[in-house]
Order: sequence, then structure tokens, then C-alpha cells
Amino acid sequence: MLVFNTPAELQAWSLEKRKAGVRVGLVPTMGYLHEGHLSLIAEARKRADEVVVSIFVNPVQFGPNEDYEKYPRDEQRDLERCEAAGASAVFLPTPQNMYAPDASVFVVEEKLGQGLCGARRPGHFRGVCTVVAKLFNLALPQVAVFGQKDFQQAAIIKRMVRDLNFPLEIVVAPIVREPDGLAKSSRNVYLSAEERQNALGLSRSLALAADAVAANGSCPSQDLRAKMAALLESMSLRVDYVELVDAETLLPVPEATAGTVALVAAYCGNTRLIDNRIL
Amino acid sequence: MLVFNTPAELQAWSLEKRKAGVRVGLVPTMGYLHEGHLSLIAEARKRADEVVVSIFVNPVQFGPNEDYEKYPRDEQRDLERCEAAGASAVFLPTPQNMYAPDASVFVVEEKLGQGLCGARRPGHFRGVCTVVAKLFNLALPQVAVFGQKDFQQAAIIKRMVRDLNFPLEIVVAPIVREPDGLAKSSRNVYLSAEERQNALGLSRSLALAADAVAANGSCPSQDLRAKMAALLESMSLRVDYVELVDAETLLPVPEATAGTVALVAAYCGNTRLIDNRIL
Repeated sequence: MLVFNTPAELQAWSLEKRKAGVRVGLVPTMGYLHEGHLSLIAEARKRADEVVVSIFVNPVQFGPNEDYEKYPRDEQRDLERCEAAGASAVFLPTPQNMYAPDASVFVVEEKLGQGLCGARRPGHFRGVCTVVAKLFNLALPQVAVFGQKDFQQAAIIKRMVRDLNFPLEIVVAPIVREPDGLAKSSRNVYLSAEERQNALGLSRSLALAADAVAANGSCPSQDLRAKMAALLESMSLRVDYVELVDAETLLPVPEATAGTVALVAAYCGNTRLIDNRIL
Repeated sequence: MLVFNTPAELQAWSLEKRKAGVRVGLVPTMGYLHEGHLSLIAEARKRADEVVVSIFVNPVQFGPNEDYEKYPRDEQRDLERCEAAGASAVFLPTPQNMYAPDASVFVVEEKLGQGLCGARRPGHFRGVCTVVAKLFNLALPQVAVFGQKDFQQAAIIKRMVRDLNFPLEIVVAPIVREPDGLAKSSRNVYLSAEERQNALGLSRSLALAADAVAANGSCPSQDLRAKMAALLESMSLRVDYVELVDAETLLPVPEATAGTVALVAAYCGNTRLIDNRIL
């Protein structure tokens, strides 16, 4: 498995692959890889000859009061997991070689990113779009795989590919969960034993919504959101948002039906967790 | 010569060229081609196996009170000129096939675009960066050629390529002028006979600055700008800006010296013209 530490190294390799007609798949990550990430690598392997995994805790997508500094990192274990998962190459850049001191060009998304995490994390999706555009230009993939766990992010990246005409396909892979339902997340490592138990409130609130829609066909969003929020609060979670949105526009729907996306964000102690489910 | 009317047609062709190891050059234009554009095509031919010329009056880079509607167009003549200049392909998209009705992703530049035309034309460089990023992803060029006439634009595009890691080289070709010094511009067609004469004020004000720096080595910018503005006004031009800036940062310099860039924008009747010169 190759390891590239600089943008120039990766791009030189990618240009060679392009020339050779080799199909490249990209899996952008922030590292501290768990089974969710490994499922993305597996998905990319099905669809490409060579898979590049990028591991980069991107400072530009973190707010000033967020967890950039303490975000968990374990480079050695990540490399082992990538190799075991069949990655061809890992891209491990630094903030210094990814961003010039006078960097001034950014990619912004102005509709899908207005609500949900975009509303709570100003500048987050600007940072995500910018780094992903850079990774696309460096890895030159024919396919890039993202996780549904970050539903809004995946929608925004698909929109970016469409609106900027990137010559590649975006694949969104299903959420990987712990046996008890908690969505896999690098941030789960922050949780105490008690918080870990309370964190089940997220997936349970989504199950509540899915069950209600399955049973009734359609439910007023206002009622459903109140019930979901009550469940979250009953498990000592502080609600950041509970939303029921259209899968394409990400705009709130008045009635939740099959295909509506339920999304929750909640604080479990000091840890902000997100989860979602297509009803 | 091939003519592509849709983004998908161009991209399919470009992907084939990439695979075949053919070097593609791109010359983005708004059409109504003059000798300036033809010099860009000639430059691209020197540096690439195949040259794509895009002809697209990009609505997103025009302000609400600007000349989008009346911008001169002559598709048939443009095609003939491209063919005569040795272009391999012309890309002639429509606003409808370039921008989805719900387009929401844009490329922004936040430093170099603050002054000069960026300050006078809000949103202009956001539109330029966005359409050029799209063209890069559609034509997949190894080299793209821009004119020095749009000095700020060329600096911003170079910055975009650097900051978003586009795998290509930007070449900036010299300004092509009429025998009397007026910079070639599609907008010169707007000028009456009298305005055409007055328009010489732009290149003359730049010559004044170049002569002053050549003679004195260094000149206080404040004095020089005042003299340039006086010259412009003496020829019935309404000054939009007169600036002396650093070639890299585009920030005003207190003293103009060799290498300083002088830039002027002025209204000649209702027509806004720009010109510049590296001193």
C-alpha cells in the first residue's frame, strides 16, 4: 500500500493512473477509522481498480469552539486498517501542505447547507466542500464513496459534483451501527459508559419515527418531532435539532411519509452526535 | 472542428482525450472573438495537442445593471475564426445546460477579488470562478490560456488553480492592442467614433505611469494616480478606478516601481473599459 504525504505526490500518481485508464475510487475520511469507514472502502473496491483513502482532520470545517484539537487520531492503526481493507494508497497530508497561508478560494453551497448541521455549524460545509473539491482534483477519482451517516454532507457533495461538473460518481453507503443501534462514529470514543447508554436515544428516536410512519402511512411532522425530542430528552440528551425533511431539497416537510428523512443531532454530555434514517 | 453544445458532450470527448494521453488546451471566452482571443488560441496550440475554445456569455458573472443582454454575440463568425485559428473544438453551451434551476454551489475568492473590478462588480469573480471551475471539469485541460487584459481575473484564476489543486497550468498571454494603443475588447464595438478616440486615454494613462517609473525608478503612487486620473478626465473619460498594485497580492503599493501593475477602469460614454500594464 502506498502512502502519500503531499498533494503533489498523490496528484502525480493519479495522473499516471488516469493515463493508464485505471479506475480510481476515493474514500475521504478524517481518520480514526471504524467499521463505517471500512464499509466505504469495501464499496469503493467494488467500483474501482484502485482505492485511495484520504485521512485528514480538515481544520477548515471545524468551528472555533469545536473539537478540532481533540478530534481522535491514530495514524498507525488507520494505516493498518486501510491495508487490511485493501486500499491501494493512503493520502495523509498536513494542514500546511493542504492550505497555503494566503489561501483565498473556497467552494460554497448556498441551499442544502442552510438548515440542519449547516445552521448549527457556520462555515462547516464551506470547509467540507473546499477540501473535497481539492481531494477530487488530487485523486482524480471516477467514483467517491461517502457515508449516509453524514446525510446532509452527502447531499451537498452530490450537489457540488453536479453544479461544478466534476467527472465522477458519488456513492452513498448505508450507516453502519453497533449491535444495539448506535451509529458508528469516531466521536463515540468521547463517551463515558453512561453516555454510551444514553446515546442510544438517537437511533431509538429515529426508530420511533420509522415505526410511526410504517404504522400510519403519514404523520404530522410537528407531532413526530415532539415525540422524538421527548425520547431524546428522556435519555438525558440535549437536542440540537430534530428534523423531518425532503430527501432531495433537505427542506422540512409538514407530513412525514415513506421516503422522508428523519435527522437528529444531540449532545450526549459534551459530545455532539448525529444520526438519520430514511423513513 | 467539432462543436459541442452540451456539457456532457464536451466532457465525454475530454475523458477520451485524457485516456488517449492527448494534451488538451482550453481557451475560455465570451465570444465575439477579436485578435486578442485569437492570440490565446495560438498560445494554447503551442502548448497542447488539441485546443478547446469555449464561447459562453456567462450570466452569473454579470451584475443586474450590467450589459449581459446586449453583450455582442456573433456565433457564426466566432466559429469561423476558431476554425481558422486551429481550434479542435468549440464549446457553445446555453445558460440552461450550464446551470440547473436549483444550482447552489459556487466558487468564491476572498482576497484578490476585494479591490479593483471585484469592488465595483459585486459577484463578478464568484461568477467567473464558478464558470471556469466548471469549464476545467468539462474540458479537463492540461493548460488553460487567459489574457492579461483581465489582469485581476487571471490572478484569481491562478489562485483558484493553486487553492483547489486543479491539475493544470495557467498561461497568461499579453494584451493585444490596436495600432493606436487601445486594448482589443469585445466591448469596443459599443463605442461611437468620438468615444473610440477618447478611449485612447486608458492606454495613454498607463504609458504615462510606465514612462514616469522608467524615468524616475520609483514614484509615489498618490501623485501618479492623480496624474493618470487627470489624463483620463482630460479625454472625457469617467474614472472608475486608477490603481497601482503589487502583482502578486493586488494590494495598492505606496510607491510604484518596476513590476508594479497599473490598472485603470473608466467609462467612455456608457461603456466601461479596462486596461493595465506591468510597469
